[in-house]
Amino acid sequence: MQAVHNIAEICARHGITDVVLSPGSRSAPLTLAFARHSNLTVRVVPDERAAAFIALGMAQAQQRAVVLVCTSGTAGLNYAPAVAEAYFQHIPLVIFTADRPPEWIDQLDGQTIRQHNLYGAHAKGAFEFPADTSHTDAKWHSARIVNEAIKLAQAGPAGPVQVNVPLREPFYPKAGEEIQYEQNVKVTRELPSRPQLPSAVLTELREALRNASRVLVVAGQQPADTELLLALHRFAATWQVPVVGDLIANVHLPVVSDYDQRLRPLGHQDVFMAVQEPGLKEALKPELLITFGKSLISKSLKLYLRNTKPTQHWHIQAAGVEADTFQSLTKLVRMEPTDFFGALLAEEPHDSPSSIRDTEGLILGSVPSVTTNAGGSTTYSVTPSHVVAQDATRVASVSTHLATPQLKWPAIEPLPGEEASVKAAYLKSWLAAESWATSFLQQFMQQLEQPFNEFTAFHHCLQLLPDQTALHLANSMAVRYANILGLPVGKQVEVFANRGTSGIDGCNSTAVGAALAQPQRPVVLLTGDVAFFYDRNAFWHNYPTPNLRVVVFNNHGGGIFRMIDGPRQQPELEEFFETHQLLTAENTARDFKLQYFPVSSFAELESALPVFFAPETGAALLEISTDSKTNAEFFEQYRAAVKAGFPS
Amino acid sequence: MQAVHNIAEICARHGITDVVLSPGSRSAPLTLAFARHSNLTVRVVPDERAAAFIALGMAQAQQRAVVLVCTSGTAGLNYAPAVAEAYFQHIPLVIFTADRPPEWIDQLDGQTIRQHNLYGAHAKGAFEFPADTSHTDAKWHSARIVNEAIKLAQAGPAGPVQVNVPLREPFYPKAGEEIQYEQNVKVTRELPSRPQLPSAVLTELREALRNASRVLVVAGQQPADTELLLALHRFAATWQVPVVGDLIANVHLPVVSDYDQRLRPLGHQDVFMAVQEPGLKEALKPELLITFGKSLISKSLKLYLRNTKPTQHWHIQAAGVEADTFQSLTKLVRMEPTDFFGALLAEEPHDSPSSIRDTEGLILGSVPSVTTNAGGSTTYSVTPSHVVAQDATRVASVSTHLATPQLKWPAIEPLPGEEASVKAAYLKSWLAAESWATSFLQQFMQQLEQPFNEFTAFHHCLQLLPDQTALHLANSMAVRYANILGLPVGKQVEVFANRGTSGIDGCNSTAVGAALAQPQRPVVLLTGDVAFFYDRNAFWHNYPTPNLRVVVFNNHGGGIFRMIDGPRQQPELEEFFETHQLLTAENTARDFKLQYFPVSSFAELESALPVFFAPETGAALLEISTDSKTNAEFFEQYRAAVKAGFPS
Repeated sequence: MQAVHNIAEICARHGITDVVLSPGSRSAPLTLAFARHSNLTVRVVPDERAAAFIALGMAQAQQRAVVLVCTSGTAGLNYAPAVAEAYFQHIPLVIFTADRPPEWIDQLDGQTIRQHNLYGAHAKGAFEFPADTSHTDAKWHSARIVNEAIKLAQAGPAGPVQVNVPLREPFYPKAGEEIQYEQNVKVTRELPSRPQLPSAVLTELREALRNASRVLVVAGQQPADTELLLALHRFAATWQVPVVGDLIANVHLPVVSDYDQRLRPLGHQDVFMAVQEPGLKEALKPELLITFGKSLISKSLKLYLRNTKPTQHWHIQAAGVEADTFQSLTKLVRMEPTDFFGALLAEEPHDSPSSIRDTEGLILGSVPSVTTNAGGSTTYSVTPSHVVAQDATRVASVSTHLATPQLKWPAIEPLPGEEASVKAAYLKSWLAAESWATSFLQQFMQQLEQPFNEFTAFHHCLQLLPDQTALHLANSMAVRYANILGLPVGKQVEVFANRGTSGIDGCNSTAVGAALAQPQRPVVLLTGDVAFFYDRNAFWHNYPTPNLRVVVFNNHGGGIFRMIDGPRQQPELEEFFETHQLLTAENTARDFKLQYFPVSSFAELESALPVFFAPETGAALLEISTDSKTNAEFFEQYRAAVKAGFPS
Repeated sequence: MQAVHNIAEICARHGITDVVLSPGSRSAPLTLAFARHSNLTVRVVPDERAAAFIALGMAQAQQRAVVLVCTSGTAGLNYAPAVAEAYFQHIPLVIFTADRPPEWIDQLDGQTIRQHNLYGAHAKGAFEFPADTSHTDAKWHSARIVNEAIKLAQAGPAGPVQVNVPLREPFYPKAGEEIQYEQNVKVTRELPSRPQLPSAVLTELREALRNASRVLVVAGQQPADTELLLALHRFAATWQVPVVGDLIANVHLPVVSDYDQRLRPLGHQDVFMAVQEPGLKEALKPELLITFGKSLISKSLKLYLRNTKPTQHWHIQAAGVEADTFQSLTKLVRMEPTDFFGALLAEEPHDSPSSIRDTEGLILGSVPSVTTNAGGSTTYSVTPSHVVAQDATRVASVSTHLATPQLKWPAIEPLPGEEASVKAAYLKSWLAAESWATSFLQQFMQQLEQPFNEFTAFHHCLQLLPDQTALHLANSMAVRYANILGLPVGKQVEVFANRGTSGIDGCNSTAVGAALAQPQRPVVLLTGDVAFFYDRNAFWHNYPTPNLRVVVFNNHGGGIFRMIDGPRQQPELEEFFETHQLLTAENTARDFKLQYFPVSSFAELESALPVFFAPETGAALLEISTDSKTNAEFFEQYRAAVKAGFPS
């Protein structure tokens, strides 16, 4: 077993600190090797599906690999959903699956499946640990495998790696027998390197940038990265280009720089892209699209970019599978985004004509500046009669009357004249759209007479998030609501969501993992009832998470299906799509000793939130009970209002 | 979408009646096609892991394929544990996984993974439905695929088959639009055939049987099969050979026949194989082993057969992967077991010498016959002092005193003389061992002064099972306890357990599936707390199961680890193996409207059981709370007693 014990030692030497294991007999030698190692923290989670997502949440928070250990049989298959999420979200997991030795596979022994390459196309690699390590070459091989697996999992793009470990009995040392970790264990390191482009190519790219009047930078899902944010901000200010990012791109995080703050990234694309105004879409149209990061949430932005088809699309990605998300890819730039944005400044600092920033009509900055702008503005209004008229059946039962937001929409026509003006008008259009969206949302959400509904409740929760929160957004409506509503400007809230595969299967567990990994930081999960109940086993373990706050928006079903055209027109809506479910979270809170805050009105919500978020409250669950039909109706009003945002 | 709608029609034409689906958007066309088909019953289960095990439980009960439908992304990966169980337990599942069309894989779209051949080595086949069925050849292909998948899933050995269905928007018909099912849809049938051996080969096998004095038939996991039971019984009586089967082999079920009832299959191998008596092991030693069915529970029988290595081992299996479970396989007989046992009688009915049945010393029939046997018997006794002396630390805290069962053990030496006598003595040894075990258990369980413990509680539950029950045994201790204790003789109780992979991950769901599929039959699940809480989502749906009774043996952890040498000697026992967990089932019962019966004493158990099992009670949960240490101590006493069963 020395080779097996050395696994723990090698992991520790590579800087791994955390292990999540699920108990089993076959895996006992691994369990003991990890549990007894003084530099490793081992946590036990019985449900392997939850265990793997907890490990994922920890690895995501720590930005280093976490080890998973399970026994033989279907245990490892329960990891599969988290493994796929880790694969597509680039999160390093090193998975040790205990197994019978190869000669006992398919011999009708218990807990025996075909574990070789268990995760198929969703793991970066699959290694077979030798069943017998008595030969010195086999022992060398065993140590090599562990080193290679850890490095492969952490090399960009990071991801999950399986090491299948066949184990023969006896599994246990004698009572009182100690485990020895070899101090001269083999450790091989990989020196970090980052791809760089030849300077001639960089010059070409700069030239292309200089020649393009309509450049757009779009950020996909990314962990928070201060260096990247700074490089991006310098790039945007220097070249005077708009940057757009969903919440999960974490480009909303404030960055300290002396560059023009008006060119911080925009985030309200879900709002302004929904406005039905061909002129707006034309004004925003990019000719050169620069993207980095992983997936987008904003379907409207995605479809817009697919439809407008920029002439050039550069995707910045140091390594990994190529994706042509907008069907317009022309250049794959094999660099780290931080390096790319930095490199395109290096020899050309602040070379953008200052006239652009001085151009009349740039609508920048905070919300009130919108209303003070007078140039070519249009009055926008929404009235209940207007909305009701659009779809009487859907909206009729909401009896309250909406206030009438009055918002001026700035002119979006390109300014006539030279290249610089085209560029300025284009930039202005993006900034104006964002600014309008911010004001629109603020006014829309502040309407006094609303039925209690989850969209507004969601807004309240986002507004009151504690600073430094790690915000976890569950699929499917939670992440969409958050992306529409956005976070208060300047708030230090890092955003996470399982958007690698967009599953609902491990949202609780991922948040629990984050809370365990960063006990000093508030971790808030906003989730719907289906995702919440699906993954209740996230809480089924013995580790306290006093920093965890779970907000369950319980509308007793998959509310999203009532919000989208198609299912809501079908007679099968309630039974086969929405899946009406009867649970409340009360018993779950009781089972897992979470302080329970049930609310079903704005007044209750407002009084609950400060207590709920207070650090001294400890692990808590806020259940916001709403009515699915009311939610759908109110959200429909929002959509009608925003759609008509710029009446033509 | 016509080709997609036809999937439902083709399934119905093949006799499929039940569909389990989990809601999703991408899968909507499949959902509607199945939900609107008048010959199909569709049930919605949100957690795909539970959904797949529910489908497995239904297919197992109905002995025909059940359809699973899920959306794209990790949904299908949550099926993986049940798919592996179905693969190894030979249960037909036809799985339709909705997918994006191939051009959108790996393009950073939501809920998109690499779904082709998602279950790898654990599915019988994986088909890709055409993304575009406008060409007539593609439409032909699409119908062919569905036909092939259904036939492949149901062909022996049955198993899971995946059909990946790429779907393009729009997913939904217009409001009010009806789905048409083509009446001339393509349906291809496979005519049933069964492999037969040439008569010359059968004659050789008969000759070998005639020449073997020590033949043993061992039945692995098998669904209940009256025809097989009758053939087996005739075979055993004709050739005068012992048949041994675990509970999951379902050979304990009574069979109406005019053959010698004393030669019904034995089931107490877990008890008598634990007796430490080399003479007994020698007397039971087979030279020709005949096996059929899938896995064994009884580790002691398995190890015994591996150690004794019969000269010949014939495994009867019509098709499928070969397994050499006892490292002694000499002949793989490609026939259905029913056909095999029937064929070996066909030309040789009742040819066994009647003298064998008349031989003095055959210890057959019911329990009291043991004590009346006087030939070479040995007194067996167990006293607390004896047990305590063995391991003082483990047993000391059990303060009650055990009664002293006095059981006579019959002589087991082979009778001297001719071949027939060797055969008779051999048979007698097996029957005597079984008979002794039955008496031993009865006396051991009836001891008056016992601490409340799960082993005895388990015995009480088994004794009071309603007739015609479908008994589901969870992994891991439940199925082991049941195999030791056995069912009352003559009880019509069919036994199920997920022993294909022996996972704890879907035990509740499998029982729920059985209850849904056979609403007129009592379905009883006996489970430990870890398996129970692991799979609570089994109950998270809207379908009543008034015939379901769940008995949770809650010792707040994986009690098995305290019962086996190895982990119980480790300091990590409680934290890393047993996984002490705090839940009781009360809140789960409340959440899912199961009538809740908590008991923690024999008196409470005895008064609860009749009400709990009464048909009018409806869906109910009996929670038997015991102390893990007491359980381990009591079970250790049982083991010490049985080990010393035949003191040398």
